[in-house]
Amino acid sequence: MANNENTDWARTWIGGATRDEIHVAGRDLPSEIMGKLTLTELAYLLVTKREPTPQQTALLDAVLVSLADHGLTPSALAARLTYTGAPEAIQGAVAAGLLGAGSVFLGPAGDTAQFLFDALHDVYGTPREDVGDWSNADDATLRTIAERAVDARRAAGARVPGLGHPVHKDVDPRTPRLYAIAEANGLLGPHLRLLAHVAAVNEDRSGKHLPVNGAGAGGAALVDLGLPPSSARGVVLIARTAGLVAHLVEEAEQPVGMPLWLEVEERSSEH
Amino acid sequence: MANNENTDWARTWIGGATRDEIHVAGRDLPSEIMGKLTLTELAYLLVTKREPTPQQTALLDAVLVSLADHGLTPSALAARLTYTGAPEAIQGAVAAGLLGAGSVFLGPAGDTAQFLFDALHDVYGTPREDVGDWSNADDATLRTIAERAVDARRAAGARVPGLGHPVHKDVDPRTPRLYAIAEANGLLGPHLRLLAHVAAVNEDRSGKHLPVNGAGAGGAALVDLGLPPSSARGVVLIARTAGLVAHLVEEAEQPVGMPLWLEVEERSSEH
Amino acid sequence: MANNENTDWARTWIGGATRDEIHVAGRDLPSEIMGKLTLTELAYLLVTKREPTPQQTALLDAVLVSLADHGLTPSALAARLTYTGAPEAIQGAVAAGLLGAGSVFLGPAGDTAQFLFDALHDVYGTPREDVGDWSNADDATLRTIAERAVDARRAAGARVPGLGHPVHKDVDPRTPRLYAIAEANGLLGPHLRLLAHVAAVNEDRSGKHLPVNGAGAGGAALVDLGLPPSSARGVVLIARTAGLVAHLVEEAEQPVGMPLWLEVEERSSEH
Amino acid sequence: MANNENTDWARTWIGGATRDEIHVAGRDLPSEIMGKLTLTELAYLLVTKREPTPQQTALLDAVLVSLADHGLTPSALAARLTYTGAPEAIQGAVAAGLLGAGSVFLGPAGDTAQFLFDALHDVYGTPREDVGDWSNADDATLRTIAERAVDARRAAGARVPGLGHPVHKDVDPRTPRLYAIAEANGLLGPHLRLLAHVAAVNEDRSGKHLPVNGAGAGGAALVDLGLPPSSARGVVLIARTAGLVAHLVEEAEQPVGMPLWLEVEERSSEH
Repeated sequence: MANNENTDWARTWIGGATRDEIHVAGRDLPSEIMGKLTLTELAYLLVTKREPTPQQTALLDAVLVSLADHGLTPSALAARLTYTGAPEAIQGAVAAGLLGAGSVFLGPAGDTAQFLFDALHDVYGTPREDVGDWSNADDATLRTIAERAVDARRAAGARVPGLGHPVHKDVDPRTPRLYAIAEANGLLGPHLRLLAHVAAVNEDRSGKHLPVNGAGAGGAALVDLGLPPSSARGVVLIARTAGLVAHLVEEAEQPVGMPLWLEVEERSSEH
Repeated sequence: MANNENTDWARTWIGGATRDEIHVAGRDLPSEIMGKLTLTELAYLLVTKREPTPQQTALLDAVLVSLADHGLTPSALAARLTYTGAPEAIQGAVAAGLLGAGSVFLGPAGDTAQFLFDALHDVYGTPREDVGDWSNADDATLRTIAERAVDARRAAGARVPGLGHPVHKDVDPRTPRLYAIAEANGLLGPHLRLLAHVAAVNEDRSGKHLPVNGAGAGGAALVDLGLPPSSARGVVLIARTAGLVAHLVEEAEQPVGMPLWLEVEERSSEH
Repeated sequence: MANNENTDWARTWIGGATRDEIHVAGRDLPSEIMGKLTLTELAYLLVTKREPTPQQTALLDAVLVSLADHGLTPSALAARLTYTGAPEAIQGAVAAGLLGAGSVFLGPAGDTAQFLFDALHDVYGTPREDVGDWSNADDATLRTIAERAVDARRAAGARVPGLGHPVHKDVDPRTPRLYAIAEANGLLGPHLRLLAHVAAVNEDRSGKHLPVNGAGAGGAALVDLGLPPSSARGVVLIARTAGLVAHLVEEAEQPVGMPLWLEVEERSSEH
Repeated sequence: MANNENTDWARTWIGGATRDEIHVAGRDLPSEIMGKLTLTELAYLLVTKREPTPQQTALLDAVLVSLADHGLTPSALAARLTYTGAPEAIQGAVAAGLLGAGSVFLGPAGDTAQFLFDALHDVYGTPREDVGDWSNADDATLRTIAERAVDARRAAGARVPGLGHPVHKDVDPRTPRLYAIAEANGLLGPHLRLLAHVAAVNEDRSGKHLPVNGAGAGGAALVDLGLPPSSARGVVLIARTAGLVAHLVEEAEQPVGMPLWLEVEERSSEH
């Protein structure tokens, strides 16, 4: 088996090690990455195989910090409750928190990224590099694309991703700020712009105001940054891990899990 | 129940949201964090409640990128194999990868942090802020502390944490580079310095060369940066999430999980 | 807050405890469940709110043992590799193994259950209890339902669930045995029967032989047993947990994770 | 590589498959396990490599059903909150629930098993098969062993495992019932008997009543059943998976996660 081509699967560009060396992203880790790249820059490099420009780093950091935490969310509570039962295995509590990043929370970043990418792709075809080929899309065209995409979703009885939030009914405070940061860095690309049209079209069609939410804006920004839309759902997990770790550091000092359980248990037994 | 003090548990400094606002780390997320802090800086702020200096950020980024990836490790393989079965739930594959960050891999960052902190604490007591009180420890004292701590471990038949690596037998290439970056930033503190003494004492006592490994050096640096030792095991997970996400983006294009399974299955059925 | 109706969410039929009592499924756990019900019977009771007949128990056990293990699958390997890094947290290794039970492996049990249920539901409406109302479906009708359902999937470019297996190309050895056990217990219901028609229709339409796989047959049997189709994906996890735990007990004595990693790492570094 | 002895790691007794066959526990799955063994019997076989007697099956089922559920525990809440965010990936919600089975909840089953096994082992040495060699231990000897073991723990400032429960202060209702079932099946072995002495000694020494809890009794019973103590922590997860799956089936109909989150979020924002 060692001599046939099947063994060829045992390779990766992400990283590797020999007795004396470690390489990550095709580079010597100690001399070419440590002290040279931030974690955010390395994440960009690992996912796109290119180093980010300072502007791209600024926007990526803005996306990541915008999605790192949102308080005592279901994810944060699940992580804290897991810590209650297994404080010695903090990796398990972090994992439990991440497992809630699905179709309802955080996952919409990825769904929005794919939805916008597909809508543009149907009209423009695949961009050769980043979103270069799509960046000249004018607003009238984007409006048309938005109408087509929203109508298709509505016809299928499916939700338009990236819109609405159970707490932020009028405006998600992360969204306008992210658009401003994108614009200030010259990175207000076709996906972010299309998403704004999508929200407007959706309101026209439904008569209901659903603001662009933070996950949706973040997902759009990630594709404008040149990340593959399929990576968006994973990339936002890097940010959320930071928030979850902070919750667990706090949980050790100021527990939420145990009193939450005892209160729910007491209420539950009244039934 | 709502009116008694028990409900007081429902609070956190990490983050929170109202209809119109989101605050993280006690600040307005859009205006005071987005566009202002990198993900690394936010992680530092969330865990220590202080903003890092540029030097602290530089060292923290160096720790994080040094531990983001190490190739097709058990963790990366577990994540990829999980993706094979559940490609639609990338959060599950990332979680599976993180779950292997225990006592053998990555977890030693936290064990080393705690071990060094406890050894210094026994001599100096609790530092009032950061490691300020310990920073003047001279090398002779650190050598004595290292001897005491190593001998105690050996007497208990326990391993000294932070030393040795199954692949990097002579030197872990991350370690000297991390010490150099710490020194260049004026942050070569008592934990990193003590760890070097620990490795020397351990070699003297056992007659066996075990280099300071990357996880151990990273854990020591985190405590020198002022992070609580109990947080070290969690903080390195932020970095590893970035590596795992990159593996999964690659896995979608260039699968390792499926051919690995088929080869193992075939070999297994020969028995 | 305690006095309004919102607190009503804090209740569950599954279980509860007071200082002196524990009730599960609305019964006194010590006197009415322990020593009275097997784990399989309790699982049936918890999911359907009814005790199973001996025949139902026999079929449910057959489904569960048929899906408990399939050797060194991606799930088993992920669990073992996770144990390599975190042997002290066995719950993490089991969790990592379960996380691979998605759309590709094991998850098809649930997809098949839902697919068959929906196909029957379109014709017969919702059954009042179990599958009673559907149980008289004759083979000609089931063939027609199968044609409609298969054609709809093929028209949508989607796979028909429950068919085909990467290893068992001709026949999945679990399938005929499960049908025989169902029949011997008088439980060869409309879902299992429909699935056989689905396989036949699919072969007619595509000209390709894809046998009913073990997960698909198991999913069909679960719905014939009266379990809600949405529960099938979860129920099979009970069985797989048993297999994963056994793999981890073995892993502690006879490691696969560490040598697998070292071999992959060595091969990987040759690139 | 295929030709050297290293490839020998790719084997397992648990299960395996070829094109036409599946074997589990060294047997033909369809003909020798399906329709022959219950899930509980298969679990016993997989962990011990022996088929259980009817008495052993009865006790193992009693242990498993006793630990399957305990209401809206931290684990059940974590699973439900994870479902809130990712209802499409039920395996993730189950995994999140299992991750809380650590040193505080459920894990004590394993800690107790190991503690009792080690205490007996120190006196009697390793049993040749099951606990045969230890089964004649008289009560005076067990009392002495209990005193030695409890005193050692207290001297080390460590908790005695298997005692006490935050809700069941006087008696854990599962415990006397499990002892009765063990006795009725002729399986009230040295571990269960030792644990009763441990509780009595602990009360004598501390002046505080801590009843044998359900996890502790379950862990003791598992070792008396001939399971390796190291397997106990894993085996109880099989039972808990059944409880968690039931919670998630209920969660889909009667949500706890979302209203719990919204209430905590609202309270949290009052600070």
